[in-house]
Amino acid sequence: MSDKAVVLLSGGLDSATVLAMARQAGFECYCISFDYGQRHLSEIRFAEQLAVILGAVRHNTVQIDMSGFVGSALTDPSIEVPLDVDAEDIPVTYVPARNTVFLSYALGYAEVLDARDIFIGVNAVDYSGYPDCRPEFIQAFESMANLATRMAVHGRSVRVQTPLIDLSKQEIIRRGIQLGVDYALTVSCYQLDDDGKACGRCDSCRIRRDGFAEAGVADPTRYV
Amino acid sequence: MSDKAVVLLSGGLDSATVLAMARQAGFECYCISFDYGQRHLSEIRFAEQLAVILGAVRHNTVQIDMSGFVGSALTDPSIEVPLDVDAEDIPVTYVPARNTVFLSYALGYAEVLDARDIFIGVNAVDYSGYPDCRPEFIQAFESMANLATRMAVHGRSVRVQTPLIDLSKQEIIRRGIQLGVDYALTVSCYQLDDDGKACGRCDSCRIRRDGFAEAGVADPTRYV
Repeated sequence: MSDKAVVLLSGGLDSATVLAMARQAGFECYCISFDYGQRHLSEIRFAEQLAVILGAVRHNTVQIDMSGFVGSALTDPSIEVPLDVDAEDIPVTYVPARNTVFLSYALGYAEVLDARDIFIGVNAVDYSGYPDCRPEFIQAFESMANLATRMAVHGRSVRVQTPLIDLSKQEIIRRGIQLGVDYALTVSCYQLDDDGKACGRCDSCRIRRDGFAEAGVADPTRYV
Repeated sequence: MSDKAVVLLSGGLDSATVLAMARQAGFECYCISFDYGQRHLSEIRFAEQLAVILGAVRHNTVQIDMSGFVGSALTDPSIEVPLDVDAEDIPVTYVPARNTVFLSYALGYAEVLDARDIFIGVNAVDYSGYPDCRPEFIQAFESMANLATRMAVHGRSVRVQTPLIDLSKQEIIRRGIQLGVDYALTVSCYQLDDDGKACGRCDSCRIRRDGFAEAGVADPTRYV
């Protein structure tokens, strides 16, 4: 029997690649997507489809009420998503403690499944400068997780696997293509429209488009 | 201006005492209760009332979908709440990663408020043996939190305050009574009925009742 893994799947390019990598490594994958009031809610439809196509055992969409977390352009429609971001600063699309909340939920789910591995597509190279994408954060989360649960008390530790952490966007894309990921079925845009079309102008669209260009792969994204 | 604090408030004896302690320490308190499908949902009504009476600035109830977390007697009605618990084991009322999820959410809320303090009523003495009530878990959470957020990157650290951690139940009760907490307005039972009456038989009821007896204080709990 294969080992089980929890895979955080947003419907984006990175997490789709992570799911393909976890499958290739032989894991039975249990995927979670979060509906946290993000603008780009239609990404969840992409996640559901990706989970099936990439051979996950199950996909759950979890409602998390982050309406108290005003102040992020990803959840507050009154804040404009910026088209250009200063690489030195943390952008307004940052959602406070988002990866901490997502990983905490994944930890509970891992314990229920008796899974030892949690996969998350964080990346410290071509990313938006979020503090909760850094390797030191992931390591600290893992240390905490290994004190938090019944399985930890019983000596079963959890690993937070971040196979993309040191890859550039073009390397991620090349890896995914080797594994057969159809990136036309993924979305990255922060302000995706209801038909799943990308704006082509936000920070996330820009990083994605540059990635395809640098990988020498045709960009399959549907833009508005 | 007072400093702001996020206070996790369940409606129970412990968290009510914590709120009173945070108020006495001069904090402006922003309380959160979680509706996570627990049996004892009526505790949230107690929490709302306590927040007002104990002078919190705000109280939010947050919906968190833990329906995937089968296997706990607190969320799964098909599992019986045990009446007696072996002190050496982790009981079936344990909810996987519950305090991790709650604290993660509190961390995001703290960042939005620019609050540096999060109060939680965990206790490592008269408790039910949950791994996420131990001091080493709290310390690890705090270390992780101080890498997770924008405020951490900007040098503002967060403290997870656990003023009850080393107190026995009777000490908690004595302290709360000094601070004017009306424990008739708190609930501890794992299987509270719709009128807010306690079963008087579960582990949590037993610890609470013994606490009042040992503190030499009349037990104001309404039992079925």
